[in-house]
Amino acid sequence: MSRKPDPAPGSRPTLEAVAARAGVSRATASRVVNGGAGVRPPLVDKVRRAVEELGYVPNHAARTLVTRRNGAVAVIIAEPEFRIFSDPFFEQQVRGISRELTAHDSQLVLLWVEGPGDYDRIGRYLGGGHVDGALAFSVHNDDGLPSIIGRAQVPAVFGGRPGWPGASGTPGGPAVPYVDADNRGGAREAVRHLLSLGRERVAHIAGPRDLTSAMDRVDGYRDVLLDADPGLIAQGDFTEESGARAMAELLARRPDLDAVFAASDLMASGALRVLRERGLRVPEDVALVGFDDMTSISEATDPPLTTVRQDVEGMGRLMVRLLMRVLNGQETEPGTGSAPGSVITPTELVRRASA
Amino acid sequence: MSRKPDPAPGSRPTLEAVAARAGVSRATASRVVNGGAGVRPPLVDKVRRAVEELGYVPNHAARTLVTRRNGAVAVIIAEPEFRIFSDPFFEQQVRGISRELTAHDSQLVLLWVEGPGDYDRIGRYLGGGHVDGALAFSVHNDDGLPSIIGRAQVPAVFGGRPGWPGASGTPGGPAVPYVDADNRGGAREAVRHLLSLGRERVAHIAGPRDLTSAMDRVDGYRDVLLDADPGLIAQGDFTEESGARAMAELLARRPDLDAVFAASDLMASGALRVLRERGLRVPEDVALVGFDDMTSISEATDPPLTTVRQDVEGMGRLMVRLLMRVLNGQETEPGTGSAPGSVITPTELVRRASA
Repeated sequence: MSRKPDPAPGSRPTLEAVAARAGVSRATASRVVNGGAGVRPPLVDKVRRAVEELGYVPNHAARTLVTRRNGAVAVIIAEPEFRIFSDPFFEQQVRGISRELTAHDSQLVLLWVEGPGDYDRIGRYLGGGHVDGALAFSVHNDDGLPSIIGRAQVPAVFGGRPGWPGASGTPGGPAVPYVDADNRGGAREAVRHLLSLGRERVAHIAGPRDLTSAMDRVDGYRDVLLDADPGLIAQGDFTEESGARAMAELLARRPDLDAVFAASDLMASGALRVLRERGLRVPEDVALVGFDDMTSISEATDPPLTTVRQDVEGMGRLMVRLLMRVLNGQETEPGTGSAPGSVITPTELVRRASA
Repeated sequence: MSRKPDPAPGSRPTLEAVAARAGVSRATASRVVNGGAGVRPPLVDKVRRAVEELGYVPNHAARTLVTRRNGAVAVIIAEPEFRIFSDPFFEQQVRGISRELTAHDSQLVLLWVEGPGDYDRIGRYLGGGHVDGALAFSVHNDDGLPSIIGRAQVPAVFGGRPGWPGASGTPGGPAVPYVDADNRGGAREAVRHLLSLGRERVAHIAGPRDLTSAMDRVDGYRDVLLDADPGLIAQGDFTEESGARAMAELLARRPDLDAVFAASDLMASGALRVLRERGLRVPEDVALVGFDDMTSISEATDPPLTTVRQDVEGMGRLMVRLLMRVLNGQETEPGTGSAPGSVITPTELVRRASA
């Protein structure tokens, strides 16, 4: 772990001065300054009074020394670089994370995974003591990343419900803190909306089979359409191009379809292009609902997309808050072993012109 | 600096074994394994033979210990996150850097700058010994980043010719290694091409005044059109929206213009939209040339863009190679103080339909 704090300017009151004035040990003063957990309330009061009286400002370097933190967090996107830059989802999630980390005075360092060949190097980096924690997202079920993170023993929070073997959810698996949207509930709302418009043959363009977010949306679709023809479900991978391909497949199999629920706005946008090429009108001939509400897509398509909104930026912020709780918990209550609870955020149907 | 190498598996031959077999010191063996500079050729041969005979594989952890490297390089883009994700230029540069760093078994960590409030934190991170070096690009002339990097004493290579006060180019300024394209030459070629088509009133949409790449392109335009009406130059900031605004300004000032050279493809794309809205045909009424050859733009516009190609991915790779030379130079020839030379890469006019 790095230990090169800048020397504090001589004019500033030190933590030692605070401890002396409060009549407590330096360790106790430091614990109070860093949250106060485990310190008896009368002592907390004394230290806080000393802090105020001396005008003590806990500078970052000193805080680093006390908390053994690097002041940096790794954000790991388990996707290749071309996907990261082409899908606005990642931009939004990174934006939320970036803002929240800045609020915690922690430096974001972004990493991504071009392929399994990168795991070793990423593991060494994470294990090298350069970051206080990791936020990982778009982790596919067969991904090597969770075990890399586990071996590096770096606290982590995941974006999206873990679906890999041994993760929480599996009986006996360790609790892995994560933040996700209510994918299943959102999908149910999308399909019910299409049915409420009188549509009878609702197709689904699904996301990757190895991402729980995609599978939860399929489950939501099936919750409402218990006996849907399997031919009404086509496979995509969340990209625009895959949405176009899936739409073409669906039209070949079921030319009578009158509605499509696509599991991402990017796929809906690809589907829209194919529908237009075939001379089918949206929503008159085929009603279309997306997922995400990436407004750079959903407001820009013609017609604009009805979609299921998830608060991607907000989820990014929540991931940071959860990680900070993990970090604080580890420091102030060692040995309790309880992971902070995960968070599922609500979704909301946003009606525009496409359905 | 971090020093937590994984223990090497017991079955592997060690560097000590190599040194013993070669009959040299461990230090000499290590220098040979890490490049061999400063070691007499006969000793280099002995060590290399020992390496082969023993099947010694220099693992990364050992190499880190020897070279005092972290195996990570910070890529710092001096732009806010929304710009990074919306301009394909950054994706291409990052792609080149990423591939070359992977080839050097070094981990890329991406940082960016939302505003001056981030400098302090970035400085602490860079000074904390977490990375071996930094690659910085899109550094504006008044940017605080170069001095932050300087104070952190981390070896750095810049993307784009430095234009800040005190940088190389200024007499007496320190040599700052950088990689750039021949912006001025490329601009000259673009303008000459437009003249060769018989165009007589060639306008220019310029990039930000505080980036040397943009100013070099203005200079190239002026090199050819020595007495151009200043009203034929409009200011943009490399974004699509600014290209549209600049085009509207130009048409208001000089409705007789018959050609436009835009300093980026994104700005050319914005200009194209405005020309179309005004009912002007490209290239019949107004010929249009861009800069960059971001094919996701230049091949996708209608008509496709004639543009000045720069090898952005290749420049990213070159930045890494230059940094590696800086790092090796520092290790193997301490005290020489000579910075590796900077690199200017050629540009090339790519003719498509817009001019």
